[in-house]
Amino acid sequence: MSCTDLDTLKQRLREFAKARDWDQFHSPKNLSMALSAEVAEIIEHFQWLTEEQSKNLPQNKLDEVETELADTFIYLIRLADKLDIDLLVAAISKIELNEQKYPVDKAKGNAKKYTEYG
Amino acid sequence: MSCTDLDTLKQRLREFAKARDWDQFHSPKNLSMALSAEVAEIIEHFQWLTEEQSKNLPQNKLDEVETELADTFIYLIRLADKLDIDLLVAAISKIELNEQKYPVDKAKGNAKKYTEYG
Amino acid sequence: MSCTDLDTLKQRLREFAKARDWDQFHSPKNLSMALSAEVAEIIEHFQWLTEEQSKNLPQNKLDEVETELADTFIYLIRLADKLDIDLLVAAISKIELNEQKYPVDKAKGNAKKYTEYG
Amino acid sequence: MSCTDLDTLKQRLREFAKARDWDQFHSPKNLSMALSAEVAEIIEHFQWLTEEQSKNLPQNKLDEVETELADTFIYLIRLADKLDIDLLVAAISKIELNEQKYPVDKAKGNAKKYTEYG
Repeated sequence: MSCTDLDTLKQRLREFAKARDWDQFHSPKNLSMALSAEVAEIIEHFQWLTEEQSKNLPQNKLDEVETELADTFIYLIRLADKLDIDLLVAAISKIELNEQKYPVDKAKGNAKKYTEYG
Repeated sequence: MSCTDLDTLKQRLREFAKARDWDQFHSPKNLSMALSAEVAEIIEHFQWLTEEQSKNLPQNKLDEVETELADTFIYLIRLADKLDIDLLVAAISKIELNEQKYPVDKAKGNAKKYTEYG
Repeated sequence: MSCTDLDTLKQRLREFAKARDWDQFHSPKNLSMALSAEVAEIIEHFQWLTEEQSKNLPQNKLDEVETELADTFIYLIRLADKLDIDLLVAAISKIELNEQKYPVDKAKGNAKKYTEYG
Repeated sequence: MSCTDLDTLKQRLREFAKARDWDQFHSPKNLSMALSAEVAEIIEHFQWLTEEQSKNLPQNKLDEVETELADTFIYLIRLADKLDIDLLVAAISKIELNEQKYPVDKAKGNAKKYTEYG
């Protein structure tokens, strides 16, 4: 399979919505809600499982979770597109900021939020 | 940009977590919760705005939303990595399935869920 | 109605879970996830509607939303019970705090977060 | 302390919003988003904790979680009010339905969704 990148997905989603005259529903406000609803479908698969069970899903469950991750990714790309945000650039910047906020010597082995550092 | 960028981000996030000994906290169950918390921070920016206002954010607000989208993308990549799911492949499959579930003649101009088609 | 109704619901939910040996699944962590999943089912009903449409739901949609509100309320009561939190007392305290954070002269007619007051 | 019931809270929240001219922002669509954002603040407190840790929160953490539960309850009451839904009646009905969907002999000791019963 060839390399399908984010721009290709973005274009495909634009065409999908356009063909169905769905842009009228795709305000950023609405897309944030749809994104939230999809993430909750991921949560639903894990809510009664232990952390250990969540690492060892049977294949049928993994397939279902894969679908919810796909839906989440689709709405995230769509929302970023409507806001003219480049997800890759934004993610790189945020990782670099996180490296400042969570230096290894302070962050190692604990999950405290940086605001809780002394 | 080629699709090595998702892989690059994935690797970078692995190193970030490893250096901080954070894999212990990164069960799929926990990551789904973190993902959910970040999406809600996007929602918070839009909850009192009209749809029209959400399309025309002032620059400072847009910058804040960009950060939340970055955080969401980061946790999505991390969760997909821990579940060994390829986000691009999953998204393409889902778009193709959606093309079946939402044929243009049935879907055009309305936002009904496919389960509500006659 | 007196406030014994929240206590009655709380007791009923305790018995429901006990009879099914479900307390093992009802850690606060898990209950917060279940609560989140139910709220997202409310969101799903509104995501493609305009604000005006959301004020004028047809009866069948209103019935569905009522079920999701019920599920949300149930998990909220259950979570509060497991944490030994009194929802009514907590809510009154929070309203009183909000009256401080959002004085009428500052808050009137605008939806800014109190942290954005000059 | 006297008995503050749901109707009293509902009235108090009506007055709070009216005094601040906030009804313009309180469409059911918007309130569902605000509810979602508050629930995520609960999730945030538990995301890196184990289930066991979530049952044994230190007092300062418990106080913070109490505030988020209060905020969640407040938005739930407000949303139900705007939709003219009686939360207590809805909850009782749903528990009774759940008793049908999850009979003790099928549900005992397992967290399967009723749709997964043979």
